[in-house]
Amino acid sequence: MTDKKIKEFDTTIFLEEIRKRVSVDESQLMEFLSLWEFKTFKRNEFISSASEIPRFSIFVLKGCLRQYTVSDKGDETIVYFAEEKHFIGDLPNMRSKTASGFYFQAIEPCELLTLSAENWQKAFVQFPWWTDAHLTGYQKWTASLQQQIAEMNIKTGEERYLKLLNSRPKLFQRVPQHFIASYLGISPETLSRIRKKIFNI
Amino acid sequence: MTDKKIKEFDTTIFLEEIRKRVSVDESQLMEFLSLWEFKTFKRNEFISSASEIPRFSIFVLKGCLRQYTVSDKGDETIVYFAEEKHFIGDLPNMRSKTASGFYFQAIEPCELLTLSAENWQKAFVQFPWWTDAHLTGYQKWTASLQQQIAEMNIKTGEERYLKLLNSRPKLFQRVPQHFIASYLGISPETLSRIRKKIFNI
Repeated sequence: MTDKKIKEFDTTIFLEEIRKRVSVDESQLMEFLSLWEFKTFKRNEFISSASEIPRFSIFVLKGCLRQYTVSDKGDETIVYFAEEKHFIGDLPNMRSKTASGFYFQAIEPCELLTLSAENWQKAFVQFPWWTDAHLTGYQKWTASLQQQIAEMNIKTGEERYLKLLNSRPKLFQRVPQHFIASYLGISPETLSRIRKKIFNI
Repeated sequence: MTDKKIKEFDTTIFLEEIRKRVSVDESQLMEFLSLWEFKTFKRNEFISSASEIPRFSIFVLKGCLRQYTVSDKGDETIVYFAEEKHFIGDLPNMRSKTASGFYFQAIEPCELLTLSAENWQKAFVQFPWWTDAHLTGYQKWTASLQQQIAEMNIKTGEERYLKLLNSRPKLFQRVPQHFIASYLGISPETLSRIRKKIFNI
């Protein structure tokens, strides 16, 4: 990405997120930024499909997207929502050039920063602080996914609904109810009963 | 760990696992190995408890251990079984010196290689190939945890039982049935019904 290209959109929240994680001098940060590419997607547009090799890793500047999988029987389940400031992608399959098991779809019009497999490798070699931040991020993420799995076993649907509402309230204003149900692993009918009970509607 | 100490136990499977992931010369590998410490644990002994700061990361040379969490109501759920050749630990909390949310317990007498927080940091700085292998491992692990979450929503208990039986048959010979139930997020009674149906017992 050239300097001219970088000026076309606002990188503030991206650089803020990086600075939050690592201390690095600004010239390196600009060099790092030049590896990323700006892309836009329309509402409902697919960014990448299962059975495709993922072309890039993503940082969300604006909008919201969902990551989901479809079973052999055709049942769909959402495993992740990425809003502004979230990283999302399928790095193992992008790096090994194998097909992903996941669909990535824009739920809203999206402005994304994307990092190709080639540039991912460059960043890994050139910027150890990025590797460090990456590794720390993944370590935290696996712990939180393990916690999520534990909670699916231990907590009721209502408890998990309330936890998500508490931790990501904005998500509920931008995502349809049946997507929330899919993410929580409950039926839309159960979600509806939970909402009636909580909000007295 | 000194050369003498290293000779006290068999590091073959550990070095095999490392060589499978990266190509690195033997002298570096020995230097890397010297950062690890050999520890044994008795059956049922706790390696680390929730509310404790984890002291080390683990590679299993022999034995089997479980990672689990306990809810406010006292319900226990297993999130991971580590057998021979598995890495296990709570790196985010070990590195940040904060309390873990997980218990780590030996299910069998265990022989472990352990890496302290201090030596983890040394390895990260000295051996970029280790960092690379680590990052790749974590990337694959998050994808597999996301897949596991999806399957908890999409697949029946029976389907998940059969998948685990197929992928880790030895686990079923060394782990009590109620641990398998806890890991699959089903009741011991449901597991019993599933086994009766499948094996006609």
